[in-house]
Amino acid sequence: MDIGILGTGMVGQTIGSKLVQIGHKVMMGSRTIDNPKGMNWAKEEGPNAYFGTFADAAAFGEILFNCTQGSASLQALEQAGAENLKGKILIDTSNPIDYSAEITTLTVCNTDSLGEQIQRAFPETRVVKTLNTMNANVMVNPAKLIEYTDIFVSGNDGEARAVVSGYLRDWFGWKTVIDLGDITTSRGVEMFLILWLSLRRVVSSKYMNIKLVTS
Amino acid sequence: MDIGILGTGMVGQTIGSKLVQIGHKVMMGSRTIDNPKGMNWAKEEGPNAYFGTFADAAAFGEILFNCTQGSASLQALEQAGAENLKGKILIDTSNPIDYSAEITTLTVCNTDSLGEQIQRAFPETRVVKTLNTMNANVMVNPAKLIEYTDIFVSGNDGEARAVVSGYLRDWFGWKTVIDLGDITTSRGVEMFLILWLSLRRVVSSKYMNIKLVTS
Repeated sequence: MDIGILGTGMVGQTIGSKLVQIGHKVMMGSRTIDNPKGMNWAKEEGPNAYFGTFADAAAFGEILFNCTQGSASLQALEQAGAENLKGKILIDTSNPIDYSAEITTLTVCNTDSLGEQIQRAFPETRVVKTLNTMNANVMVNPAKLIEYTDIFVSGNDGEARAVVSGYLRDWFGWKTVIDLGDITTSRGVEMFLILWLSLRRVVSSKYMNIKLVTS
Repeated sequence: MDIGILGTGMVGQTIGSKLVQIGHKVMMGSRTIDNPKGMNWAKEEGPNAYFGTFADAAAFGEILFNCTQGSASLQALEQAGAENLKGKILIDTSNPIDYSAEITTLTVCNTDSLGEQIQRAFPETRVVKTLNTMNANVMVNPAKLIEYTDIFVSGNDGEARAVVSGYLRDWFGWKTVIDLGDITTSRGVEMFLILWLSLRRVVSSKYMNIKLVTS
């Protein structure tokens, strides 16, 4: 499959490399055409890895990943262009984190979420929020943890949620994907990040995720 | 031990009954002295269970539980009286949930939390936020779930967090208590409730909690 990845950071690189490794063609996109991280990534990952602008990557992919920082996501998607995003599934992994405050806060929460903002800004794109609740390395390799854990999908299009759940299983090895429902459930997975960041500070292990346990 | 419980709802009743069963004397407090739920609870639980006003329960307890609804907690604690709360550990189980909106929201979050509001309002009380991330029946019986799960404590007084962690183990059977640090970490455990409520809607099991899994 041809897949577009917006963002050249740790999340974009980790997901992009995994997708190339399992046989997909991946274009990573950035704000500028000469982004060193994106250019190096494409060079290192070989012939099935490409680099271009946000618009190039969005036009290239049959399916897209938003791996930009939450504070920059809406602008990055504008640059990608609504026409290039139209009709496609956009897997949104971003978190609206404001690191500038002494105690980390979210730039949007409670009555709205970044997932909803993206869906409203691009109504003809099928936004599925997922993967945002864990480290990048866990996203693409859940077996890295000592037990299988859980991952969530949120989005208005039930078929898109099912398709993405299938990709999470087939591409990355997730066993359990919990379908939370419409895009308003992005609020919960984004707000969870504040607890996650607290845990990150007190848990000695580098990688972690949560597992839902029932009676 | 003499324990005061503020609030006559499901959480207060469940915790109160458990504490009476394991040999403590418990007074449940309410806004009014003739609250039928509180009176019935004390009658049913026998000679070590008492009922009174918020002020009565706060004066009675060496340690106190806030089990009122988040939207009513500050007012309930005002009625309990700063003098009755002074110097004591207050275990805050409440969540600042606003059920009036179509989609449930929090009345405070992100840059503040109910735990912090309570600590600011009663600076001479040692507030420890815990137990708010699960069903009442799981709070007092974590073995009800098919695996051991995690519980968190937040509070400015490290000794109080350690004391409460001990009570969670000894009284209720918690194996792992994760110390998140100061009371600002209440934000994370309160904001988690939005994800918890989403899960509650899609998970068939009545009882649930999360387990932290590491690498």
